[in-house]
Amino acid sequence: MIIDCHGHFTTAPPALEAWRKRQIAAFNDGTSAPKASELRISDDELREAIESNQLRIMKERGHDITVFSPRASFMAHHIGDFQVSSTWSAICNEMCFRVAQLFPDHFVPAAMLPQSPGVDVATVLPELKRCVEEYGNVAVNLNPDPSGGHWTSPPLSDRYWYPLYEKLVEYDVPAMVHVSQSCNACFHTTGAHYLNADTTAFMQCLESDLFSDFPTLKLIIPHGGGAVPYHWGRFRGLAQALKKPLLQDHLLNNIFFDTCVYHQPGIDLLTRVIPIDNILFASEMIGAVRGIDPDTGHYFDDTRRYVTAADVSPEARFKIFEGNARRVYTRLDAQLKARGH
Amino acid sequence: MIIDCHGHFTTAPPALEAWRKRQIAAFNDGTSAPKASELRISDDELREAIESNQLRIMKERGHDITVFSPRASFMAHHIGDFQVSSTWSAICNEMCFRVAQLFPDHFVPAAMLPQSPGVDVATVLPELKRCVEEYGNVAVNLNPDPSGGHWTSPPLSDRYWYPLYEKLVEYDVPAMVHVSQSCNACFHTTGAHYLNADTTAFMQCLESDLFSDFPTLKLIIPHGGGAVPYHWGRFRGLAQALKKPLLQDHLLNNIFFDTCVYHQPGIDLLTRVIPIDNILFASEMIGAVRGIDPDTGHYFDDTRRYVTAADVSPEARFKIFEGNARRVYTRLDAQLKARGH
Repeated sequence: MIIDCHGHFTTAPPALEAWRKRQIAAFNDGTSAPKASELRISDDELREAIESNQLRIMKERGHDITVFSPRASFMAHHIGDFQVSSTWSAICNEMCFRVAQLFPDHFVPAAMLPQSPGVDVATVLPELKRCVEEYGNVAVNLNPDPSGGHWTSPPLSDRYWYPLYEKLVEYDVPAMVHVSQSCNACFHTTGAHYLNADTTAFMQCLESDLFSDFPTLKLIIPHGGGAVPYHWGRFRGLAQALKKPLLQDHLLNNIFFDTCVYHQPGIDLLTRVIPIDNILFASEMIGAVRGIDPDTGHYFDDTRRYVTAADVSPEARFKIFEGNARRVYTRLDAQLKARGH
Repeated sequence: MIIDCHGHFTTAPPALEAWRKRQIAAFNDGTSAPKASELRISDDELREAIESNQLRIMKERGHDITVFSPRASFMAHHIGDFQVSSTWSAICNEMCFRVAQLFPDHFVPAAMLPQSPGVDVATVLPELKRCVEEYGNVAVNLNPDPSGGHWTSPPLSDRYWYPLYEKLVEYDVPAMVHVSQSCNACFHTTGAHYLNADTTAFMQCLESDLFSDFPTLKLIIPHGGGAVPYHWGRFRGLAQALKKPLLQDHLLNNIFFDTCVYHQPGIDLLTRVIPIDNILFASEMIGAVRGIDPDTGHYFDDTRRYVTAADVSPEARFKIFEGNARRVYTRLDAQLKARGH
């Protein structure tokens, strides 16, 4: 079985974006926000959006399951206030839940959180509860910078985040650390902000003793861990200088990297440097990089090819494709077992 | 010959930091700043600081020449105002010039610039002129974020920076894009801010047509290019999506990566992915990572070992160690030729 732990609903029917634009315009103009009920997307529209895109490609590439969350760049937690973010999150999470209901053999939902800069993180808990308890979400996306590139929130190791971590631990739900759109002109969203956030989040954990307080908290650092595996020696050396334990003991019981690295040498480095138990297969398909690599003739984001070609044992490959995901996403594993997998 | 293009004076005599603390305190208290003339460091003190540190290690590792600039994390352009930055830059640049005079066979100076957030970049030109014309500096360090982690300056492709680029091109002096200390709690200085800035700078160039306006401008992206080589497929794909030329044509006549990557797999990836002509040997020794790697028994920052062990031809290794640096740092090449090298 091949489990892609990093998929977003980037191909939602246009009515979703149209509604969002009305919501933003209303906030900016100080007029009444559109009602959630004014957004109507039929099951047929959802089916079409999925079947002609993600599901088609999953079948071509042989992926079985995608952990599917709202489009990351559209989370845009910096827009509006908590109410705006809350309504938008509820809509987007419901959309992914419906996709999972329509295609239960292929999609399991993960939630975005209704974060808003400067707002108490406990305000996201009701949506988290709904997504886990009612919608069967198996993970969440946690934005370490809801300001969208201004980095005004405290580091992930700060007690500010603890109410969320307590609930994630209680549910045994992992969090993928994933920023959203950059509204800082210095940072291109997918070419700089995403990768910077990955590196930053890892270093925030490294500097701290977060996992002493939350020994069972699980964080996934996407996009192959940003700059981290390429600079693994630097991070090992920094941990040593900061008198932290070896990274293996300090962080790798809790931090996992996905395989969203869009060329063979990158995946080769990842699998050479990072322990296999900490690597989760992912493609973020129909995402940041949608073209065909002229050097290979295949899609840049066809990461299954790179993992298949990597010099690892069949056992290691099984862990990357399936085993690790079932260990980290325990609620996904339970759902799969309930279906006889 | 082995040329290390990335060295900082991290071991300056303590009087330098003491003077800086007085300068900062005076600015914060609104009292008179200490005079530059109150800082007294003798040639013997400079000799001792270098001979027992950088020069000793250079000899152990077989490095011949270091391009030597003021300590990066101490540039701290976010502190004070232009006057504070200007005085501090002049002092630090003079210090590196004196080191180069004391050890002309081993050190050539590169300058920090008296940047200050929100200040016209043309204000750095007098210091640049002095450093190039009087001190024989062969390069400068350009801070793309003088705010120290708040990223309030325009991207490097913005016309804001053009007066500086015009002068760099006129002098044929390359700029290493290097941030300084982070004063944003989200970003650890050497574990996140440095690497993020490298990635960010590369993507700013990628998004733009900066090198159409400045076809002979040369930028060095340090720390192995941040996350860029590890994600080379992502960047190739983003360039394609943005309808830019191939990276080779779009950026690699102008952008170079150093080898400050502190483990063998990282250097192996760098030399596998990035054209050899774009790789410059560097160690940033006695810098961010000063310890010994328990896995190898050697210093993390002993990058000569990794380059020597990398699977590249002798010709490629010559380019990385010497040839490329002499091509990119033309003023260094001229100085070396004048000395019969």
